Amino acid sequence: MRTQVGIIGAGPAGLMLSHLLYLQGIESIVIENRTREEIEGTIRAGVLEQGTVDLMNAAGVGERMMREGQFHHGIELRFNGNGHRINMYELTGGKQVTVYAQHEIIKDLTAARLHNGGQIYFGVGDVSLHDLDTNSPKIRFRPDKDGELHEISCNFITGCDGFHGPSRPMIPANIRTEFQKKYSFCWLGILTQAPSSAPELVYANHDRGFALLSTRSPEIQRLYLQVDPKDDIANWSDDRIWTELHARLETNNGFNLIEGPIIQKNIVSMRSFVVSPMQYGRLFLAGDAAHIVPPTGAKGMNLALADVQVLARGLQAYYSSGKTVELERYTEKCLRRIWKAERFSWYMTSMLHRDHQHTPFERAIQLAELDYVTSSRAAGASLAENYTGLPMDL
Amino acid sequence: MRTQVGIIGAGPAGLMLSHLLYLQGIESIVIENRTREEIEGTIRAGVLEQGTVDLMNAAGVGERMMREGQFHHGIELRFNGNGHRINMYELTGGKQVTVYAQHEIIKDLTAARLHNGGQIYFGVGDVSLHDLDTNSPKIRFRPDKDGELHEISCNFITGCDGFHGPSRPMIPANIRTEFQKKYSFCWLGILTQAPSSAPELVYANHDRGFALLSTRSPEIQRLYLQVDPKDDIANWSDDRIWTELHARLETNNGFNLIEGPIIQKNIVSMRSFVVSPMQYGRLFLAGDAAHIVPPTGAKGMNLALADVQVLARGLQAYYSSGKTVELERYTEKCLRRIWKAERFSWYMTSMLHRDHQHTPFERAIQLAELDYVTSSRAAGASLAENYTGLPMDL
Repeated sequence: MRTQVGIIGAGPAGLMLSHLLYLQGIESIVIENRTREEIEGTIRAGVLEQGTVDLMNAAGVGERMMREGQFHHGIELRFNGNGHRINMYELTGGKQVTVYAQHEIIKDLTAARLHNGGQIYFGVGDVSLHDLDTNSPKIRFRPDKDGELHEISCNFITGCDGFHGPSRPMIPANIRTEFQKKYSFCWLGILTQAPSSAPELVYANHDRGFALLSTRSPEIQRLYLQVDPKDDIANWSDDRIWTELHARLETNNGFNLIEGPIIQKNIVSMRSFVVSPMQYGRLFLAGDAAHIVPPTGAKGMNLALADVQVLARGLQAYYSSGKTVELERYTEKCLRRIWKAERFSWYMTSMLHRDHQHTPFERAIQLAELDYVTSSRAAGASLAENYTGLPMDL
Repeated sequence: MRTQVGIIGAGPAGLMLSHLLYLQGIESIVIENRTREEIEGTIRAGVLEQGTVDLMNAAGVGERMMREGQFHHGIELRFNGNGHRINMYELTGGKQVTVYAQHEIIKDLTAARLHNGGQIYFGVGDVSLHDLDTNSPKIRFRPDKDGELHEISCNFITGCDGFHGPSRPMIPANIRTEFQKKYSFCWLGILTQAPSSAPELVYANHDRGFALLSTRSPEIQRLYLQVDPKDDIANWSDDRIWTELHARLETNNGFNLIEGPIIQKNIVSMRSFVVSPMQYGRLFLAGDAAHIVPPTGAKGMNLALADVQVLARGLQAYYSSGKTVELERYTEKCLRRIWKAERFSWYMTSMLHRDHQHTPFERAIQLAELDYVTSSRAAGASLAENYTGLPMDL
């Protein structure tokens, strides 16, 4: 097989890149080791920056998002029993976030690719990358996990294969720098079949730990509790989860947290990670393959889609004029904005979680930060511009 | 001896309080264990918030400050060899800082007190506090260090006696909470007889460590270098100091650091500290007796003068109407703003110093913070409003 751009991974980054390239008349093949059912059924992120929404619409795949998504003009920060709204819409001069689940975006992009004749191989095995420092890099894989090995000969390969995928390790260790932070807490996340308890997301810093009230649709709510990394989901009965959510989301004026059947629960770890460079020879990394943020700032999927916008422009420049300068500057162009999003995600995480290693001074500083950001217009505007998404061109 | 308010300490807080009380017709006596020459000759802080300048002027002691002070509309943050100006004046809608040395303020306040018949005892010894939970608390001291013990019977005592003074320990340990952070670096400060090398203060985060280019007057400059807490001033020849300052303040475009004779050099430690409550019975703490900030945010003296404004209002309410509610709320009223200044001082310190305990991730976050605060108007406005001083009434 031959193609212009071989894409490893059918997450939002890989599918959007394939779609953007299609719009520019550039061929690609996407391979994905999970099945279509798996990627379309796994509930993950769900908060879209203004720029992500603009991209979906500009690429012609935003129709269902605009119809079914929920538009939020603010978030609430809750501490010391009081809620404080950050009016993002007003503080940013009209930006908002859109709640629309990642797997819905995957459904929309998959449908668009298949409708336009795109090639996606789901459920593949044994993916490997070859000849990255030549003009004809290759991907090998088994379309059926037990079947024979296929090879795609490409002009370029993009690794959109997540944190554990095979692409990143192909950047030679002697030119690869990895930046990393692990946090001393995890999130226990649940999905519940219930209406929303609040019109916007609520981030609570409670003495018992962080809690987040979020939503995926008017019928399905996503709630999180900070838990210890050594904790086990088996320790958390539905009753215990609800009791803890009620305690951490309580306010001095009372708060009506609406319960429903818990249809999924799991514990997710928290990590910050960046690799530099994000490219090697004819290989380019995008999304979680290159960088991870803790979910507190809702930046992960948005960063992935920002990467592929930069990459699609670089590939367009190459195929239309032979110029490689944009591709050469891919890492530099992406990383400046990525580091700002890493900073914001680390900041939100640090501000909102109870850290039992904190001294009383550090705990007091955390509460002063919350008091400051909810009482200063400038500080609120800074939070708001990050949450709704910094400009693509910094 | 009898007085209405006994004031321990003739720093900016104690002298300003005595002056504000005088303007309200309330008597006070100030005692100070250093000599007048010592307090008027020790060069310390020198950056005044807008609110501090307004207070000096409103109290009728600002004339020389307005004539000799330097008015700065911005500061420069320097990293990766480039300088970035934070235009505080524009970002705050017209606020600025005034460079006017702390010992000049002490001279102005001392002169005003003595001119108005104020009683200040300099060079006293063996200061102690008594009967704080009665209506007639007492200060005992020796006016001459070897002479006999005197007693001042007061309505109230204010401890403006700095971090090591005798007042704070009089708050019983079982109701006193102390919050503290020590930093893993110190500042080596010099005074040099030279003209300014830059029109505004320059804060540099360099791979070799933090440096600060500051000024005390057109003829005297104050410069600082981050050094190790275990370092000794004897290790730092004038030559070595200049070499290091040149290296850390260098820019990609060249920077002309003007040298001069070094007339003073010393190493100062960095600490954050807050006590709560700031009062007990008839005792009230103000300034460094109650809270310390690292000098990076230039907040120490400004906080001290903010405390005594609150205290003077409370005492005025008491003497004019007998109401104690404002005095009872003194701690609460001060601490909310103090914690915000503690947060800002910690933030500036964390952003600007090289911390050798930092991981590569943490170092990258620090540079992302600098990149963000110098490229975002909202973030710049947040820094500017803190640097020029948050409003007194939060």
